[in-house]
Amino acid sequence: MATGALWHEKYMWWDTRHAGVFIPAGGWIEPDEHVENPRTKRRLKNLLDACGLSEQLHWLTPRPATVDELCRVHDRAYVERMKALSDDDGGDAGELTPFGPGGFEIAALGAGGAIVAAEAVRDRVVDNAYAIIRPPGHHAERDRGRGFCMFGNAAIAARHLRAGGLSRIAIVDWDVHHGNGTQQAFWDDPSVLTVSLHQDRYYPHETGAAEERGEGAGHGSNINIPLPPGAGTGAYEYAFDRVVVPALERFRPEFVVVTSGFDSSALDPLGRQMLHSEGYRRLTRRMLDVAGSVAGGRLLGLHEGGYSPGYVPFCGLAVYEELSGIRTEVEDPFLDFLAAMGGQELAEHQKTLIDGLAAFVDDVPAA
Amino acid sequence: MATGALWHEKYMWWDTRHAGVFIPAGGWIEPDEHVENPRTKRRLKNLLDACGLSEQLHWLTPRPATVDELCRVHDRAYVERMKALSDDDGGDAGELTPFGPGGFEIAALGAGGAIVAAEAVRDRVVDNAYAIIRPPGHHAERDRGRGFCMFGNAAIAARHLRAGGLSRIAIVDWDVHHGNGTQQAFWDDPSVLTVSLHQDRYYPHETGAAEERGEGAGHGSNINIPLPPGAGTGAYEYAFDRVVVPALERFRPEFVVVTSGFDSSALDPLGRQMLHSEGYRRLTRRMLDVAGSVAGGRLLGLHEGGYSPGYVPFCGLAVYEELSGIRTEVEDPFLDFLAAMGGQELAEHQKTLIDGLAAFVDDVPAA
Amino acid sequence: MATGALWHEKYMWWDTRHAGVFIPAGGWIEPDEHVENPRTKRRLKNLLDACGLSEQLHWLTPRPATVDELCRVHDRAYVERMKALSDDDGGDAGELTPFGPGGFEIAALGAGGAIVAAEAVRDRVVDNAYAIIRPPGHHAERDRGRGFCMFGNAAIAARHLRAGGLSRIAIVDWDVHHGNGTQQAFWDDPSVLTVSLHQDRYYPHETGAAEERGEGAGHGSNINIPLPPGAGTGAYEYAFDRVVVPALERFRPEFVVVTSGFDSSALDPLGRQMLHSEGYRRLTRRMLDVAGSVAGGRLLGLHEGGYSPGYVPFCGLAVYEELSGIRTEVEDPFLDFLAAMGGQELAEHQKTLIDGLAAFVDDVPAA
Amino acid sequence: MATGALWHEKYMWWDTRHAGVFIPAGGWIEPDEHVENPRTKRRLKNLLDACGLSEQLHWLTPRPATVDELCRVHDRAYVERMKALSDDDGGDAGELTPFGPGGFEIAALGAGGAIVAAEAVRDRVVDNAYAIIRPPGHHAERDRGRGFCMFGNAAIAARHLRAGGLSRIAIVDWDVHHGNGTQQAFWDDPSVLTVSLHQDRYYPHETGAAEERGEGAGHGSNINIPLPPGAGTGAYEYAFDRVVVPALERFRPEFVVVTSGFDSSALDPLGRQMLHSEGYRRLTRRMLDVAGSVAGGRLLGLHEGGYSPGYVPFCGLAVYEELSGIRTEVEDPFLDFLAAMGGQELAEHQKTLIDGLAAFVDDVPAA
Ligand SMILES: [Zn+2]
Ligand SMILES: [Zn+2]
Ligand SMILES: [Zn+2]
Ligand SMILES: [Zn+2]
Repeated sequence: MATGALWHEKYMWWDTRHAGVFIPAGGWIEPDEHVENPRTKRRLKNLLDACGLSEQLHWLTPRPATVDELCRVHDRAYVERMKALSDDDGGDAGELTPFGPGGFEIAALGAGGAIVAAEAVRDRVVDNAYAIIRPPGHHAERDRGRGFCMFGNAAIAARHLRAGGLSRIAIVDWDVHHGNGTQQAFWDDPSVLTVSLHQDRYYPHETGAAEERGEGAGHGSNINIPLPPGAGTGAYEYAFDRVVVPALERFRPEFVVVTSGFDSSALDPLGRQMLHSEGYRRLTRRMLDVAGSVAGGRLLGLHEGGYSPGYVPFCGLAVYEELSGIRTEVEDPFLDFLAAMGGQELAEHQKTLIDGLAAFVDDVPAA
Repeated sequence: MATGALWHEKYMWWDTRHAGVFIPAGGWIEPDEHVENPRTKRRLKNLLDACGLSEQLHWLTPRPATVDELCRVHDRAYVERMKALSDDDGGDAGELTPFGPGGFEIAALGAGGAIVAAEAVRDRVVDNAYAIIRPPGHHAERDRGRGFCMFGNAAIAARHLRAGGLSRIAIVDWDVHHGNGTQQAFWDDPSVLTVSLHQDRYYPHETGAAEERGEGAGHGSNINIPLPPGAGTGAYEYAFDRVVVPALERFRPEFVVVTSGFDSSALDPLGRQMLHSEGYRRLTRRMLDVAGSVAGGRLLGLHEGGYSPGYVPFCGLAVYEELSGIRTEVEDPFLDFLAAMGGQELAEHQKTLIDGLAAFVDDVPAA
Repeated sequence: MATGALWHEKYMWWDTRHAGVFIPAGGWIEPDEHVENPRTKRRLKNLLDACGLSEQLHWLTPRPATVDELCRVHDRAYVERMKALSDDDGGDAGELTPFGPGGFEIAALGAGGAIVAAEAVRDRVVDNAYAIIRPPGHHAERDRGRGFCMFGNAAIAARHLRAGGLSRIAIVDWDVHHGNGTQQAFWDDPSVLTVSLHQDRYYPHETGAAEERGEGAGHGSNINIPLPPGAGTGAYEYAFDRVVVPALERFRPEFVVVTSGFDSSALDPLGRQMLHSEGYRRLTRRMLDVAGSVAGGRLLGLHEGGYSPGYVPFCGLAVYEELSGIRTEVEDPFLDFLAAMGGQELAEHQKTLIDGLAAFVDDVPAA
Repeated sequence: MATGALWHEKYMWWDTRHAGVFIPAGGWIEPDEHVENPRTKRRLKNLLDACGLSEQLHWLTPRPATVDELCRVHDRAYVERMKALSDDDGGDAGELTPFGPGGFEIAALGAGGAIVAAEAVRDRVVDNAYAIIRPPGHHAERDRGRGFCMFGNAAIAARHLRAGGLSRIAIVDWDVHHGNGTQQAFWDDPSVLTVSLHQDRYYPHETGAAEERGEGAGHGSNINIPLPPGAGTGAYEYAFDRVVVPALERFRPEFVVVTSGFDSSALDPLGRQMLHSEGYRRLTRRMLDVAGSVAGGRLLGLHEGGYSPGYVPFCGLAVYEELSGIRTEVEDPFLDFLAAMGGQELAEHQKTLIDGLAAFVDDVPAA
């Protein structure tokens, strides 16, 4: 067997149009490249190809998600509105989510890619997998796109797995932004544990607080870990060791999804955190270990954010290497520099915060 | 009178070649745009032009610094080596400082721009000024270029002012990186107070510690404020109120230079700090006030880093607005979003750190 | 006096969105930079600034054209539709003319720039002038945008001059595409002589034939010179000597406008012609001479197309140099290469064609 | 069997640095993207992937050419000099051929790709093949790089086939520039027929005349068809029917190579010719037919120039479709527009020229 990978050229054709950083051009914003553009994802794929790792991965082919599959998470009216806009000239899916003509088909292919990859992991076609999907999904809400996301890829895949018979799924989100869409989708659903590590009050500002823990039967099955800006590898590792891994050990999912943003890296233009490739590698190791011990090793990474065209490739490669157990000859040329940055070690105020969150583990519904 | 501005089209022709972020292309780095490219600076100039503020500024014309002027800070052998490389096909000025043919002339025009702007402020041709210079200068050392910098623009201008008769000059550096070159130039020189606020142990890793305070007669006239990553507007303002402004009030310079990097902004791909345009505006206000009270208002900003093509323009505009007292109709479209980020307020651990540094003010040589 | 120049930063903010060459992205077209983008115009301005010629030009400041001024050439319903689209999210002005929010204001500023420059030349504020306007204008028709053009800048300026009292105006169009909009505007108007040199049956395919000569009172006051692809400097010079200049000498305009596209250059990605900077210089010389002899020297260039970011600057500089009589130290680094290309000399089949068109001169309404 | 295709991600990492069009940045050339950049090639690959044709092609994996293989065409001193420059910081291979560190390895992988693809066609692993190689090769001379080319990929592959036992090879070059390097390599060698169609006196200026026909035993086995600028599909088809195909029918090669530049397209920024995708398709058809009748169908395309990032993909797709006999659902969105351009039909002066060259066929060494 091998580690699965998923990619489709059409993902790169999702058109976020011109912007200043992430605000659409117009007014006092001179048109420029949108920060969510194909370069970051394509350059990761390019590095996999250039170094030869691609040849050792098992490549999966996405199919479009059906409207019914999309509607497991989204309102039908929203889905149809997106299709209509896409058939015309494109538009904005809601908040900060511009797209061009044909965008619906690309986003549906993204959600379908998450489904295909999930099936391959579930059915042991591959050991585990990482899907380089675009557009991202974790901000998309039931009835509107947000934050560059049209459809909730991970939530749709999780619902698909549930419909296919799995009863317990965990989604861990290490994107620098809050996984608000994923949280919303499973807010009162105890069968899907959602854990999001994110920069405190960044995006969306109004969600992601530690106090948001799910509702009704779902209480306790949503954990937010809002890290203060400037969190380094030490803080992330500590949060995994104290909260994320224990929560999964208690929940005992049959399947683990990581919604993976490389915008928690030290060179991201949006996030203020400081992970480097070795940090992502270590977090992946922890997820492999816990998935191995509770979920038969069923681990799937789904690509979310990450806006450094130069550094995303090395973070992504580290994750693929760790998933596959293959170490290529590539050495991250930024690693020594980033690892030596002040603030990589766990700071006292970070420790205090994380220790406080550890109590939530006890409220996670045990298997 | 008016606020001075300085710009030369040739500054934009400084060629940093292809890179991944800031490491030159080659090996496992697929060629891409270098993070230090003309877009950020040009887009600032463009916004000034588009909104009409340009017409209300007093534009100054740079001239090349002479070799002798450069040698007030740099070794002659280094200057000559740069000239020779530039006359050939370009190369690297030392560490992470690629440049193309003709780069020497551009860098000399940059240093000369700093001189011209300094003279205009000194001689009250303008009230104050901000010079959009490229390449930056504060990392350049006596005998080598570092961190995208070939010549120490600010240090050269300060030496020029000293040679012209001024006896006390202060340089405040709010670039996210340590002003190592400026520190080096005036290490044992009590006539130039150098203060650098920067992200702790970022670049260069080995300089910028609080313990570095100058030597011999210069002891006490160098202050480093290494802020932990994730510092927001609150931390910056507190550091100015507790350390920077008091230090200047004690030193009573005749002329204040700000080496201004907008890479301390919340959207910078290199820095991890969180200033927004309003933060830069407030820091500018403080510098205006202190320059007004001790230096006859003589305040000069010299552009250093800043790598967000979308956000640098709004930070720079805010500085020009504050310097000139003119409020344009432009509203920073990112401001509400960035101001609401978690971590903008002063945090306890930041306060403790800054309070500890306040004691250094007493060792600043008083006028 | 001096040569006038006109530019506005906002012209560069006209947003043609993503495309393949000139077809909007979507379907099988992967999003990329539109061929009509700011680079070509900005780089011309940059070169003027870098070499110092800018300082010797008289810079004019555009104002927006009023709706009434636009309606001298366009239907009011079209103008209002453009305003409404622009106030919303932008759209397409008709055929291949995408624009973003706020596009109306930029296009109106373009047309207004043509008016301002025309007045400056008419009133002898400047000797002559060249306005770097964007978006271009010569394809815009009465009731729809076409070919990247929203409003007919030159036609609007000519109508403005007519309204201001001038009775005879000539417009010579050396853009590689047919000046269909200009032709339409003055189709039956003998007071404005319109001459277009263009690549035979290129864009629009259905207009630009030699047989199109104006109607009614306007018969004879429209001349099309459809040059076969591959025409070099020799063919252009011959066409000017045999047709363009004689036509103007007969018509004796009081004011000469050149709608100037540098897409007739040898490095243009759209046109197939082969002008180089020296060719444009010589054509400018001819226009200066004829304007000098019949129109008191009143000559105005209005920028239209030109899609080589690398070569437009040198063509434009040559025109400015010739207009101003100032020769900068810049030497076109492409000139020797392009001048030596096969096909620069007048070919027999080109001569035959042009000789055939010379007869049209006799039908030009004599002054 | 299937049509072969060859590609390596590293080809895209060949770094031509900043330039204006094709002249390296510096002096009065503001740094910009070099016209020979990865976009054109990558976008062709992307389109193949996006439309699904990739899955129906047989992908071949390149290996580096050995130094000995390179030296079948190049001087050892030149090869070693390239290696040394590449191990350092890159440089220029001779004339207009900038490259970055590691460029030697990429160029050797390019030449090796040509070898691998040639073997696959020779050995009937595939029916025929097209290799998307970068950097191009046909301008490289024995002892220097020229025109973006370091090593003569096609010549090296042909020599490899000869060394492997084939006795007669034909190379047809439809790149818009003269195949000077290929001509030089086989100047006195009657075993390799070289035919180049190119724009008359374009690049190199001093080679490519019809009078250059080979020397000694090689006389008659080199045919140049210098087409005047502005040649359309009609002229190209006529030249194939009157000269290229008859020459091959007479020569009866065992293997046919096409050095394929898509810079003969109607949207190329360098060439002035007017082929469209349907034109390239028809030329490919002719090559398939003649290779079928004389060479057992052994036909290999090697990518050379082509500088329109928007149009190269559609030209390349047409060639792949024709080679493979698979018609995808993609329709060239530019085709109707380009096919309707004036000058696509064969013109009289073109016919006369081509008819004159037809006589050279009789001097081709018959099998
Ligand atoms: Zn994110
Ligand atoms: Zn900096
Ligand atoms: Zn045009
Ligand atoms: Zn070529």
